[in-house]
Amino acid sequence: LMKSFLIGVFLLTPLMGISQQMDSVASPLISIDKEKFLKHVNIGFDMRTEFQAYKFRGGDQYYNGLQFENGFTALTISGQLHERVDFNFRNRFNNDTEVQSLDLLSNNIQFAYLKVKATEKIDVYIGKMFAFYGGYEFEFNPLYILEFNDIYSNALAFVTGAGLTYQAYKNHQFRFQVLNSRTLLYEDLYGDIASQNIQEPIWPVSLVANWRGHFFDGKFETNYSASYGNEVKNQGTYFFTLGHKYKNKDLTLMYDFQYSYEEIDTKGIVNSILVDNEIAENVLYVENWLRGEYRFSQKFQGLLTLMTSSAYDNLNTSRDHIRTSFGAIPTIYYNPFKKIDLRFFLAYIGRYYEYSSYAKDNFDVADYNRNELRIGVIAPLNLL
Amino acid sequence: LMKSFLIGVFLLTPLMGISQQMDSVASPLISIDKEKFLKHVNIGFDMRTEFQAYKFRGGDQYYNGLQFENGFTALTISGQLHERVDFNFRNRFNNDTEVQSLDLLSNNIQFAYLKVKATEKIDVYIGKMFAFYGGYEFEFNPLYILEFNDIYSNALAFVTGAGLTYQAYKNHQFRFQVLNSRTLLYEDLYGDIASQNIQEPIWPVSLVANWRGHFFDGKFETNYSASYGNEVKNQGTYFFTLGHKYKNKDLTLMYDFQYSYEEIDTKGIVNSILVDNEIAENVLYVENWLRGEYRFSQKFQGLLTLMTSSAYDNLNTSRDHIRTSFGAIPTIYYNPFKKIDLRFFLAYIGRYYEYSSYAKDNFDVADYNRNELRIGVIAPLNLL
Amino acid sequence: LMKSFLIGVFLLTPLMGISQQMDSVASPLISIDKEKFLKHVNIGFDMRTEFQAYKFRGGDQYYNGLQFENGFTALTISGQLHERVDFNFRNRFNNDTEVQSLDLLSNNIQFAYLKVKATEKIDVYIGKMFAFYGGYEFEFNPLYILEFNDIYSNALAFVTGAGLTYQAYKNHQFRFQVLNSRTLLYEDLYGDIASQNIQEPIWPVSLVANWRGHFFDGKFETNYSASYGNEVKNQGTYFFTLGHKYKNKDLTLMYDFQYSYEEIDTKGIVNSILVDNEIAENVLYVENWLRGEYRFSQKFQGLLTLMTSSAYDNLNTSRDHIRTSFGAIPTIYYNPFKKIDLRFFLAYIGRYYEYSSYAKDNFDVADYNRNELRIGVIAPLNLL
Repeated sequence: LMKSFLIGVFLLTPLMGISQQMDSVASPLISIDKEKFLKHVNIGFDMRTEFQAYKFRGGDQYYNGLQFENGFTALTISGQLHERVDFNFRNRFNNDTEVQSLDLLSNNIQFAYLKVKATEKIDVYIGKMFAFYGGYEFEFNPLYILEFNDIYSNALAFVTGAGLTYQAYKNHQFRFQVLNSRTLLYEDLYGDIASQNIQEPIWPVSLVANWRGHFFDGKFETNYSASYGNEVKNQGTYFFTLGHKYKNKDLTLMYDFQYSYEEIDTKGIVNSILVDNEIAENVLYVENWLRGEYRFSQKFQGLLTLMTSSAYDNLNTSRDHIRTSFGAIPTIYYNPFKKIDLRFFLAYIGRYYEYSSYAKDNFDVADYNRNELRIGVIAPLNLL
Repeated sequence: LMKSFLIGVFLLTPLMGISQQMDSVASPLISIDKEKFLKHVNIGFDMRTEFQAYKFRGGDQYYNGLQFENGFTALTISGQLHERVDFNFRNRFNNDTEVQSLDLLSNNIQFAYLKVKATEKIDVYIGKMFAFYGGYEFEFNPLYILEFNDIYSNALAFVTGAGLTYQAYKNHQFRFQVLNSRTLLYEDLYGDIASQNIQEPIWPVSLVANWRGHFFDGKFETNYSASYGNEVKNQGTYFFTLGHKYKNKDLTLMYDFQYSYEEIDTKGIVNSILVDNEIAENVLYVENWLRGEYRFSQKFQGLLTLMTSSAYDNLNTSRDHIRTSFGAIPTIYYNPFKKIDLRFFLAYIGRYYEYSSYAKDNFDVADYNRNELRIGVIAPLNLL
Repeated sequence: LMKSFLIGVFLLTPLMGISQQMDSVASPLISIDKEKFLKHVNIGFDMRTEFQAYKFRGGDQYYNGLQFENGFTALTISGQLHERVDFNFRNRFNNDTEVQSLDLLSNNIQFAYLKVKATEKIDVYIGKMFAFYGGYEFEFNPLYILEFNDIYSNALAFVTGAGLTYQAYKNHQFRFQVLNSRTLLYEDLYGDIASQNIQEPIWPVSLVANWRGHFFDGKFETNYSASYGNEVKNQGTYFFTLGHKYKNKDLTLMYDFQYSYEEIDTKGIVNSILVDNEIAENVLYVENWLRGEYRFSQKFQGLLTLMTSSAYDNLNTSRDHIRTSFGAIPTIYYNPFKKIDLRFFLAYIGRYYEYSSYAKDNFDVADYNRNELRIGVIAPLNLL
């Protein structure tokens, strides 16, 4: 043992003989590489950390809780590396780090894409990126969304593929995307489900088309998308979003309508009331989402988010209504500083889940609700 | 197949037509953003990498081993982003990356907090941070601690919450903290334990109070803390630390006394001798920790750490002594460079675990010891 | 509940009283720390993202697939921190993040090492680094290798230890390394295997020796290595590589020969045809690898990789040939930009796996092949 250790020591001995002579040679050791500072690189750290008080009531749920939580913690690196090449990376530390079998990145890596300017009007996107879905709920960095509506709480938002944006007119942009429809291989996601309908497809692909319009000098905007995702052989999801935004000096109003017909349930809400190793088919989710933001003063801002989400099963036969959820999130932002964006917030989150009589009769479910108070800070920190 | 592939190729073709004309437009593409360099941001990489030779003896342990090890590997980002806002982040790559169910960060993210100057005397801390425990062992970056005493080897050091420091007098600071008492939800940590006493609390909270005093022009310092952590309903831990530090020109002496009464064992040392799915209750840990550092010359420094830790069970009835552990860590630092902090070290680590006759009679335990030699390098690298 | 929440609110109230007075004090808040910019630190982001069309044929494999994939995604930080101290870090996000039990880093941390200049001719390496194996296949950043030959597809490339390079003559460098031979502890890697031969060693060590020669003004290079790795008690691997490189203006040719005799199979190719909890012993892998690169113009480059790999079992007795695999990878690079290295690529990957009649007679195996087309982008982005 001792002998082997001495071999290790011996290996490091060249270091002990270092004379301080070389060390004390006068600097400046490396001249400043000016080019470095010409690149437009940003390093950011986005965090939302909060204190929560919540209670669940209804059905067999009767629960009170208090806790601190890191709602959003992410390191971002982005930059323009060339007149025509941009780069974007985001590592969100609140997400699992298991490398996904299909796209070979873990869910904590949300962005790793290049944007290349192909022509004056066309930008090409390649890599892991956000899907070009419409609507303004999805447009927000999750840093600013205390609670998503049911679809985006369960949707796959960051996937790998390629896309292009085409600025057809000054006020109208069109976007197209070809993406993997999942991050996991078929056998890892659907391998346990024994059903004749659920078979492996050749290409688990999503196609997304998006139109963004500006009207009345940008006071009114639309953000519409239509998309199809192929999940398993011959079965997929049809997802439509209609987003609208009105903005004047101090007020911003956003309204999204979402419609997702899923031949195979990818959101899992209907699925969750079935037994294990089964999967819901022919499911529909319909949603409304409204967010208003009003700036009272330089320091204070008020927000209100309202939302509903309805889920249906057996759409092509009996179209059974399963449940509707409701949400209301009044929020106050307070930014004490002028020169840095640091928002302390106070919010109430009310969520109500009401099951249909069909669902109550056929499955073991009951209405319930969650009431929550949150106080915390939202900090999109620009480090470099 | 081929057809689908061609679609993919087609999608990327806009890129092929890029003329080099746009590319060769003369730079400077982006003017330097001066403001960027005014921010005081630090990026650091701390590493301790080492070669170990160790042997276990005693009981049924008879084991020799040699290996290289990355004892500490961490990326840190910190900075003053505003006159009144500081930020701190540390990602330690030697820790598990499983996202914890209560605070939504994994254990490898040790820091993600903001420090906001509220008044001249009060700083507020929010986010995931170190607990304000007293004592100087805990004060060290783990980069510099080759082996912690039993409590800190098993304590939860980095938790989410809020705190404030109050500089009451020039030489006396008081600190208060409200923290989650764990990172995992009750059911993930205690879910398997079937016991009437172990029930879910509404708030798994820790409260920490700390006093730091400076005496004799900073030659002598104290760092005391008292804390209570609520783990499960009506049961928690009472933890007291008394830290003392004496410093003159070349010599630093630190002595910590730690006392942790745990209604439910959170360190796991007593717990580890019980059967599975049981948890030790009414446990006490008492510790002494002494560290001396002496600077022989600019290049050489000598260190000695001595420690004891005693564990007791059934504190409120029979107060059974379970075991006492001892530790001694003589160390030499050698820094060959003037302008960079890079310490080669050679250390011996002796650890002795002695069980009481009560423990030996009632459980399947025996005395054992570990002897270890380490040689390596400690490098707190300042990158930016 | 409400009461406890108010306590939390109360804790944060000191912030609400912040006057904007302090905030509006005129900057420049921190003077520029000139020294910072003198350090030569590089932050890079390397990515290869690609679209694949592939088919498997042969035996019971009949499979077509299309998908996007992030082949390589890594953040790198490196720098010269002192005249004599360099530092290297690479976090590859496509790899698992489970912390390894022997060296205490996860496989996604590929580099975390220091290079210290001990004398004019000797550099010392310490930490987690690449092994000093010879050959040019291994020399490449995996960013540029679409598919490795069988040995490096399964070899442990990044391990912890110490090494030194000795520039004996202007054109001849010698390298030596002492490394852990694995990243996992014996019981985690071999614990389930019940065999008298497979026992825990005291030191799971690898020793590597390497010679790099330059001839004819650098037009011809050699990169040879010999290494021994001790995996379990008295059993290990003997690995020899002979790498050769010829380079003129537009053409580069590389040829590697690899020979790995493994008393205990560490590549797993022979092992994979045995039953579970058995491990192949006395295995041999012999490989040839050839890569040619030709620059047609500033924008276009053509590449061709050819490879074979043969596996043998029971080397010391019957020397049974198990299988030979073949590979061919013609590739075209297209870089549309002058001032940034961004390569779009189109490649075909053909892989053929032929089992010997011995293998077919004794195990349940059959020949198969994989044909693949890939189109994508390789981007070694230099951020800072």
